Amino acid sequence: MKINVFLSPVSIDELYFTGKTTVVIDVLRASTTIVNALENGAKEVVPVATVEFAVKVSGGMFGGLTLLGGERNTKKVEGFALGNSPIEYNPEAVEGKTIVFYTTNGSKAIVKAKFSENLFVCSYNNISAVAKKLVELGKDIEVLCAGRNNAFALEDACCAGKLITEIAALKENIELTDSARAMQALHKSFGKSIFKMLKESEHGKLLIENGFEADVKFCSKLNSTDAVPSFMGNTLKLMPLIPAQTINEE
Amino acid sequence: MKINVFLSPVSIDELYFTGKTTVVIDVLRASTTIVNALENGAKEVVPVATVEFAVKVSGGMFGGLTLLGGERNTKKVEGFALGNSPIEYNPEAVEGKTIVFYTTNGSKAIVKAKFSENLFVCSYNNISAVAKKLVELGKDIEVLCAGRNNAFALEDACCAGKLITEIAALKENIELTDSARAMQALHKSFGKSIFKMLKESEHGKLLIENGFEADVKFCSKLNSTDAVPSFMGNTLKLMPLIPAQTINEE
Repeated sequence: MKINVFLSPVSIDELYFTGKTTVVIDVLRASTTIVNALENGAKEVVPVATVEFAVKVSGGMFGGLTLLGGERNTKKVEGFALGNSPIEYNPEAVEGKTIVFYTTNGSKAIVKAKFSENLFVCSYNNISAVAKKLVELGKDIEVLCAGRNNAFALEDACCAGKLITEIAALKENIELTDSARAMQALHKSFGKSIFKMLKESEHGKLLIENGFEADVKFCSKLNSTDAVPSFMGNTLKLMPLIPAQTINEE
Repeated sequence: MKINVFLSPVSIDELYFTGKTTVVIDVLRASTTIVNALENGAKEVVPVATVEFAVKVSGGMFGGLTLLGGERNTKKVEGFALGNSPIEYNPEAVEGKTIVFYTTNGSKAIVKAKFSENLFVCSYNNISAVAKKLVELGKDIEVLCAGRNNAFALEDACCAGKLITEIAALKENIELTDSARAMQALHKSFGKSIFKMLKESEHGKLLIENGFEADVKFCSKLNSTDAVPSFMGNTLKLMPLIPAQTINEE
């Protein structure tokens, strides 16, 4: 099993992901928000790459059960029902709903990786569950950090490093590319207190300035859920939890 | 003084660099080769972004004193006088010569940063001299890693981290962006033996496979020269070493 990390989606052609097993990370806040929307009962999350497409999709396919969610430059998009705060996506708001989701970095990264054979969404909140799922699959892994504005984001890099460390604890003889080794080293350097790392990151500081400190705290929670969003037919849903035995019996 | 690091030139518009003080790093091997070509008496190095432009430039402006140098995928370009091995660029080969220089990653990164007010080339060979020059200038710094094929290169990241550490030892109250802090952490994790880090890097392994182990060793030498290539009027030359007093007297 080989693990590679991309620090931003910018340099990669979408066809690169064809047939790959990919994990998208956008700790602040898209991947944390998606994980919690599904954990709290949303039917599905439809990631989109433009606001225009979000509006188009929501007007058509999904009737009255659709919510528009997301942000541009940390703020809720005008006319959207929800922003990109994971705390907003509580059961009252999202249960049974389809959420059409646009964000500056995260939703675009997911759309870029859409041709992956397996595509999961990872945050600190569900990191052990994602690691377990990846080890079960046993395939080579591409970790795609959403980054910030097509460049490096410390929080995504550290989360990628933590994910690799979790996988390596479950499985021997993992082969790491240089970027994967580097992200593991960054997790070791900065990951002792995830909340401190997030608070002191450029993106974390910006969120706190804009009144989102509770979000930063929420995004730092380690393994608060086992929800693993998986991309299937253009939407993110939770992996069905079928015990291995049931599969064998079929 | 603020320091920022880009891990690859791909996501940045060339106009971003207008008026900036920029340092380009491509440890394996373009920045090491450029430093040593000038150290060994080359008149100037003209970095170009395409092989076609290299041939065009060399045919015109520079008469019989021009050499074409560089590589595509680690190998010398057909018809070029020199490859991208720093060891080739010895005094016998380069003294008094203009070298038109094309490489897969490094020369392109320099061309991308051409609108910088100050543009220097850094390798492990001249890292302390570059740090000193930057501290003398006292400007905000953009470190541009050439990377590999538009993605992360461990050796450039570690060299950027070492450069930042050298600058921080010379000057207090340096402000670091997240990427700069991360590169410093990578230097701490991987930089204890530079030769080991280079040998174990993906790019280093590829070079060794292709017969360039002596180059990898050469690129690991710390502070073997004070040469600081500076980009002026489309060519890289050594900074003239004028003592401060002389400038004051003029």
